[in-house]
Amino acid sequence: MPRIDRLHADHYLIALPRTLEDSMHGTMTGFEIVTARITDSDGAEGVGYTFTCGVNGGAIADILGREMAPRVAGRDPDLIEAIWKDLWWAFHYGGRGGPTVLAQSALDIALWDLKSKRAGLALWRLLGGYDPRVPAYAGGIDLDLTPEELVAQTHDNIERGHRAIKIKVGRDRLSEDVARMAAMRAEFGPDLPLMADANMKYSVDGAIRAARAFRAFDLTWFEEPIPPEDPAGHRRILTEGGIPIASGENLRSLWEFRTAIEGGVSFPEPDVTNCGGVTPFMKIARLAEAYHLPVTSHGAHDITVQLLAACPNRSYLEAHGFGLDSYIDEPLAIENGHAIAPDRPGHGVAFDWDKLESCRP
Amino acid sequence: MPRIDRLHADHYLIALPRTLEDSMHGTMTGFEIVTARITDSDGAEGVGYTFTCGVNGGAIADILGREMAPRVAGRDPDLIEAIWKDLWWAFHYGGRGGPTVLAQSALDIALWDLKSKRAGLALWRLLGGYDPRVPAYAGGIDLDLTPEELVAQTHDNIERGHRAIKIKVGRDRLSEDVARMAAMRAEFGPDLPLMADANMKYSVDGAIRAARAFRAFDLTWFEEPIPPEDPAGHRRILTEGGIPIASGENLRSLWEFRTAIEGGVSFPEPDVTNCGGVTPFMKIARLAEAYHLPVTSHGAHDITVQLLAACPNRSYLEAHGFGLDSYIDEPLAIENGHAIAPDRPGHGVAFDWDKLESCRP
Repeated sequence: MPRIDRLHADHYLIALPRTLEDSMHGTMTGFEIVTARITDSDGAEGVGYTFTCGVNGGAIADILGREMAPRVAGRDPDLIEAIWKDLWWAFHYGGRGGPTVLAQSALDIALWDLKSKRAGLALWRLLGGYDPRVPAYAGGIDLDLTPEELVAQTHDNIERGHRAIKIKVGRDRLSEDVARMAAMRAEFGPDLPLMADANMKYSVDGAIRAARAFRAFDLTWFEEPIPPEDPAGHRRILTEGGIPIASGENLRSLWEFRTAIEGGVSFPEPDVTNCGGVTPFMKIARLAEAYHLPVTSHGAHDITVQLLAACPNRSYLEAHGFGLDSYIDEPLAIENGHAIAPDRPGHGVAFDWDKLESCRP
Repeated sequence: MPRIDRLHADHYLIALPRTLEDSMHGTMTGFEIVTARITDSDGAEGVGYTFTCGVNGGAIADILGREMAPRVAGRDPDLIEAIWKDLWWAFHYGGRGGPTVLAQSALDIALWDLKSKRAGLALWRLLGGYDPRVPAYAGGIDLDLTPEELVAQTHDNIERGHRAIKIKVGRDRLSEDVARMAAMRAEFGPDLPLMADANMKYSVDGAIRAARAFRAFDLTWFEEPIPPEDPAGHRRILTEGGIPIASGENLRSLWEFRTAIEGGVSFPEPDVTNCGGVTPFMKIARLAEAYHLPVTSHGAHDITVQLLAACPNRSYLEAHGFGLDSYIDEPLAIENGHAIAPDRPGHGVAFDWDKLESCRP
């Protein structure tokens, strides 16, 4: 039986082709990725990664390399549930969130990659198999764009294969957000699936006011109106604002998702690189199914397409333009509004390690 | 006006004089401390620290030194609320919990130390001032002890000035926990304030079963019966088990405490070294007061005595025997069941930096 021989972590800083802006994270000039590579005693390799908006990559690499590597060495890589639970509790006191969970996510992705490669199956087939064609949307980080620029960006996205669009909201004046939405509907008509993302900018009452102003534009969802720790606030925004709520990129466990769903989040949105990995992502997706809810996603579309392709309740996959594609062989393509989960064994993401060398921080 | 000149982080590993054991963290052989030292442009210094059960100290030091130091350099050290909020949001994506918040706690403690030293006031006076004599209890980490050993340890603690005792519960058989409690009551009578700490070992139904078995022993509180993410579960344990619940050492923000209090936690128990520092600790204490609840504490009794000495609703201060005392000038003494907040400026904890040098990991 193979054993985990080695866990190796690397830390890279990827500059963005252009700066991005949202309501709470300010201007982003680059993002970090931290990779986790697991080699087993037969020489087989699984690869995982996580990313940040530019902070804490060093800590994540430290946790993987210094703390997690000795704890997983020698273990049976097939017993992912056992490894996950042991790590969660070994790191609970100084963990349970933050960079610890991002590190654990990268490690967990690597274990699932290894398992599915060894099984000779694409990950989406290993996880149950539903449909490799996953509806996708373009997630714009575009709060700084004028209505005209937003329309131009959307034309580009449609040209690139997208059929659903998310824009940022949370400008200083609500009328500016409304003007941007109005420009989108005027240009692209009533049927384009359109989402809005506030990145936790509002108070509860501010979010209700915004939701009521946005209702005329028939949004698919209103994302992260407020910080994630307020289930009662989400319930008020849902019932008084009248638009379904998406949230989850800032939740760090299955249990936080349960509280969020009970609080009124209709589009749970786990991020496989920060919710703890493939293991909790799939549980969150199945939890959503138990509530008759769709599951959407945040970040890492190249890996996440595999997970949503195993979920009958998958909603849209978020596709971000973070520029990682140029460091990956065969990046994910969007065709007529869908991403297609590749059928090669594993999650199918292969890094160009030589090219990444130029991105050491 | 002074500015922050420098933030310096150090990472130490302190071996325990004897190994400690609880239900979920296993056997502990040592703990890490990570210190944060802030020097201002006048040369004044504030010191903070956080600790872990032995994991993630490297990540915490990395976050302080690599990420937080450049972000606070040049800022006005008096504007602690502004620094706290900016850091919370700058680190939110890869933060909001875990080692990030432990790092922020150490930094925040250092800022309050600096402020109160510059003001020439003990921190408890600066924070409002209530009563420097704070009731304390001995927090045993003693799940492995037999009833006889537990009684002997308690005699030692009473000799050292303690008048209230907490023991661990969560042994494999509930009857063993009951036998330990029965031995304590048989030896020390019905009036010794006695608490029990399960370190999240139980299921909700298991905790209710345990609480009912413990009710005969008149516990002051039942601590962390289950993991912290289940407000509805806490409510059931409180109402069906019938013992007040303490929880908080694994909550990482003011907002998590609000949810916990609304879920039925009667003894909120923040840890100044992991809840985000003095700034959120005091807000949590005031939030408890708004609910007519006492506030207790976890860890770092040497600093926390200053905070509870400013709270009219302070319950017991937890005093832990982690062995840090031998690296501190004038460690906190317990006299007739009380800890006395010292009146020297700042929080009053001065490390022996030379002696700590031998504890580099």
